[in-house]
Amino acid sequence: MKPLIDGLQYANWSEKILRQMREGGVDAVHVTITYHENFRETVLNIEKWNRWFEQFPDLIFQGRTASDVTRARESGRTAIFFGSQNPSCIEDDIGLVEVMHTLGLRFMQLTYNNQSLLASGCYEEDDTGLTRMGREVVAEMNRVGLVVDMSHSGERSTLEAIEHSTRPIAITHANPHSWHPALRNKSETVLRALGESGGMLGFSVYPHHLKGGSACGLQDFCDMIARTADLMGIDHVGIGTDLCQDQPDSVVEWMRVGRWTKAIDYGEGSAAAPGFPPMPDWFADNRDFGNIQGGLRATGMGDADIAAVMGGNWLRFFGTSFGGQAEETPPGLSTRWQ
Amino acid sequence: MKPLIDGLQYANWSEKILRQMREGGVDAVHVTITYHENFRETVLNIEKWNRWFEQFPDLIFQGRTASDVTRARESGRTAIFFGSQNPSCIEDDIGLVEVMHTLGLRFMQLTYNNQSLLASGCYEEDDTGLTRMGREVVAEMNRVGLVVDMSHSGERSTLEAIEHSTRPIAITHANPHSWHPALRNKSETVLRALGESGGMLGFSVYPHHLKGGSACGLQDFCDMIARTADLMGIDHVGIGTDLCQDQPDSVVEWMRVGRWTKAIDYGEGSAAAPGFPPMPDWFADNRDFGNIQGGLRATGMGDADIAAVMGGNWLRFFGTSFGGQAEETPPGLSTRWQ
Repeated sequence: MKPLIDGLQYANWSEKILRQMREGGVDAVHVTITYHENFRETVLNIEKWNRWFEQFPDLIFQGRTASDVTRARESGRTAIFFGSQNPSCIEDDIGLVEVMHTLGLRFMQLTYNNQSLLASGCYEEDDTGLTRMGREVVAEMNRVGLVVDMSHSGERSTLEAIEHSTRPIAITHANPHSWHPALRNKSETVLRALGESGGMLGFSVYPHHLKGGSACGLQDFCDMIARTADLMGIDHVGIGTDLCQDQPDSVVEWMRVGRWTKAIDYGEGSAAAPGFPPMPDWFADNRDFGNIQGGLRATGMGDADIAAVMGGNWLRFFGTSFGGQAEETPPGLSTRWQ
Repeated sequence: MKPLIDGLQYANWSEKILRQMREGGVDAVHVTITYHENFRETVLNIEKWNRWFEQFPDLIFQGRTASDVTRARESGRTAIFFGSQNPSCIEDDIGLVEVMHTLGLRFMQLTYNNQSLLASGCYEEDDTGLTRMGREVVAEMNRVGLVVDMSHSGERSTLEAIEHSTRPIAITHANPHSWHPALRNKSETVLRALGESGGMLGFSVYPHHLKGGSACGLQDFCDMIARTADLMGIDHVGIGTDLCQDQPDSVVEWMRVGRWTKAIDYGEGSAAAPGFPPMPDWFADNRDFGNIQGGLRATGMGDADIAAVMGGNWLRFFGTSFGGQAEETPPGLSTRWQ
């Protein structure tokens, strides 16, 4: 089995996009279900997903374990794994970590650009690392099987998360800073530490993360993947397109501004270009993963390595990340009151 | 396997009570986790349960399917199944039915004594039956596998729930009105319709539901069970003690009054006896199920029937009630986009 897994998307979901995922042979996607929404608002988003699962049972279902990727492939569907790009959904309540995991959350970013209750975002001037609550929440995420995602976090916070977490973490959607020096892209120090700790990087196709932006060439992107695989180890890289298909610009404003400011913050955009940037012509939607596969082949990468990058690595990572650390009682303990 | 299952408890949980469940050999209990709490408050109660599950993994774990009863028995623990005595936890949002089921809710009463958004309670003067939302919510509960519990509902509402529900419903804790004419006890019409539709009655040991109250004799109680089994069919009766062990009287006030009145409503109690009534001497806690078993034997009931009443019937009911009506896509449908 050579699974095709995308490590992050936040599309304006529709039957059209769900069918494109099937046409593209996408077996599983980590989808963002919430940014700045609090717990109750996040549950409303889950309710919306539940209605899609009910409406399109022949196209999608909710993924909870790695075996759901196989199930998706065997039944010709796409498994949808939930993620949050900010910890707003757990509010100030560590008990919500397990509750969100029970509801299917499998990835949670500790920050989205700004300081959170847990860590510092990559747009803050001072990165003070994991907070007191941040350390507690990472331990709880480790316990229940909720992956720490540092895509939008600062350098120090990311290194501390890698260090403090007892399970490998992920940067689901970013590229190397050395290739394109965006605030959101990651230093070689971070990438090396991520790889050494068994973590995963998903390469982003979001134009603000690409050298040359929307005009970035396919081969340039794939050469960067090959070099980063050399740096981190081929087992620690995958795809995380950050595809925001069909989203209106009001959504990128919500992503950037939430409720934290009354002003406009353009994030990676600018006053001149406030909206979503146009995607590169070689990756418009879920039917274009073949282009990346072809580009990787053109770098001289072998079939097994290509398969690892396109989904095999994410599948292995899912397999060791989503279960609880102690699901069962040690057998000896439970016999005392029989 | 002869499982011991209690169809309802609302104790002030403690390690002492959890250990008494093990001493009593109780394999599974449907526990009330919420009354008038809204969704977020109910989630806080679930968080409290999650901490107990984490703290006492050798005594209890959360039950989700009938097979968890077997797993509990085999590992010498008690499976805890969540229930709500009022639909406050779903607020005015039908989407919360599936969310609560995902969080483990397996029983939900449509009312608690008063009119709710869904149906009429047994203390209302006029019972207007299922509301518009009530019919929709029952259908959704049927779809996801959340049992309709009418223990605190009025006669017409209960009959309409039996009729409208496409899956058998339950009255988890009540007794026949003909034996003790409390407002909470059920008419022969209701009991007969419940049995004919494949539903379940759990016999309550809560003194306000007993002939003679706290002074009710064990044999009187067990004779009533045997007669009711004749009326409803032996397959449709079980135990639902309504044990409220160690609860302070402030809790019975919350159960009765919630936030719906500024005055005091004594419910089944009175100004002279506002608190929890003392339990009958033959049922003080979870170690006393053997007394009921003995009492049933003294009525002349055979071993197989006693085993059915003490847990076998609930186990069968759990097995057909907690799963979704359409968990999987029909195989043919899913191959189109492979």
